[in-house]
Amino acid sequence: MINTEKISITQKEELLFEGERLDDLHRNGYKIIQNPEKFCFGMDAVLLSGFAKIKPEESTLDMGTGTGIIPILLAGKTKGKHFTGLEIQEESADMARRSVLYNDLQDRIEIVKGDIKETSKIFGGGSFDVVTCNPPYMNNQHGLVNPTMPKAIARHEILCSLEDVIREAAKVLKPNGRFYMVHRPHRLVEIFSIMRQYKLEPKRMKLVHPYADKEPNMVLIEGLRGGNPMITIEAPLVVYREVNVYTDEIYDIYGY
Amino acid sequence: MINTEKISITQKEELLFEGERLDDLHRNGYKIIQNPEKFCFGMDAVLLSGFAKIKPEESTLDMGTGTGIIPILLAGKTKGKHFTGLEIQEESADMARRSVLYNDLQDRIEIVKGDIKETSKIFGGGSFDVVTCNPPYMNNQHGLVNPTMPKAIARHEILCSLEDVIREAAKVLKPNGRFYMVHRPHRLVEIFSIMRQYKLEPKRMKLVHPYADKEPNMVLIEGLRGGNPMITIEAPLVVYREVNVYTDEIYDIYGY
Repeated sequence: MINTEKISITQKEELLFEGERLDDLHRNGYKIIQNPEKFCFGMDAVLLSGFAKIKPEESTLDMGTGTGIIPILLAGKTKGKHFTGLEIQEESADMARRSVLYNDLQDRIEIVKGDIKETSKIFGGGSFDVVTCNPPYMNNQHGLVNPTMPKAIARHEILCSLEDVIREAAKVLKPNGRFYMVHRPHRLVEIFSIMRQYKLEPKRMKLVHPYADKEPNMVLIEGLRGGNPMITIEAPLVVYREVNVYTDEIYDIYGY
Repeated sequence: MINTEKISITQKEELLFEGERLDDLHRNGYKIIQNPEKFCFGMDAVLLSGFAKIKPEESTLDMGTGTGIIPILLAGKTKGKHFTGLEIQEESADMARRSVLYNDLQDRIEIVKGDIKETSKIFGGGSFDVVTCNPPYMNNQHGLVNPTMPKAIARHEILCSLEDVIREAAKVLKPNGRFYMVHRPHRLVEIFSIMRQYKLEPKRMKLVHPYADKEPNMVLIEGLRGGNPMITIEAPLVVYREVNVYTDEIYDIYGY
């Protein structure tokens, strides 16, 4: 059992287990514990943390937080009061808890083990100002299912569907609460349709293109609980200026 | 009454009325008759004609054709067999008919006077392979209503709503028929939602940005009658490379 008081350097070293590594997040000196054999966070999580807008007094839930990348980045980038990360896989949740301790963020971030499908049972309705989610992108029709379970669960709709995510987000949000999600552009019509069904009106969207003249491969969406129709589509976010050279916008979001 | 046989240069000159002008479309030498006091076509119509894909044997209906810009451009750009333009305003329909004659396109283009809301009554269900539409963008909540009627009818949902357009398009399309529309990005969620309601699945979309780093101001959408969910979002179309300088893509679409 790890003590939740502020911890010493020696204790910090003990937080890192065999096979794990510590990555610098370039935000307030924050680091994250990851196991490259299991699952490492991707650019999607970083871009979502750059897209979400969180105000000082707000409480945020990250659904399917994995190793806690989104709450940790948001704690570094925003003045948000409190972040809860919900994660079904004990191993990931444990890694996330150790990263929280490593960064001395135990007052602002709590990691809860639980199922996305039961989010509203766990936390109760109308309990958060903001919900973020980087859900599995692939439904059963697409792609090979990765045999390494943590990766498969993170990437495929094995344990929860897009509808589960949106339905539960809508339930735990307060009226006028905001939902931030990153997903694949080819599912945009489904996403809009399910969001509307649960009264989470899409209000802002940004497409992410690998190059300026290529199709987008990610979409960032903001929904408003009980919002009126009318969406703002932002300027595109372009990842690479040329091969292996990120654009300034990407460097800014990464905090370099 | 104008003779619909092929006409002479002198007869062509007689097709142009007082206050009207003849604009070159840079496609097969085609020209269009417009009255700048009433309404002139915009970039949206040109971009829609570049976005629509029409095969040699197909029949196309353009709903709310105005002065016939879309059928005339499509007759120039594609091998589409036949184009019908539906227009409620007699003055615009008459200008469109005269432009068709001017370009000797009477075998491929027919202009029909009629109401978008009655499209399926006029033509019958399942009667076209393709439907195009550059509808009024503004519903009653937005903007000042232009007091000059032809402009107001072209820009505001006075005589038909977005739902009228989509419902009638779905009805007159054959199974697997395609719908092409240009609209404003802020109405994207409504557009997707109504298209789905009438089983016109959005399958392809292109956002048009005035500059690469600015919000889009137009969206081009392709829908498939009875299609499955899954949309392709294309690379963005950027209009200006710098102030007053179009991008190469725009010059290509305009045929310069």
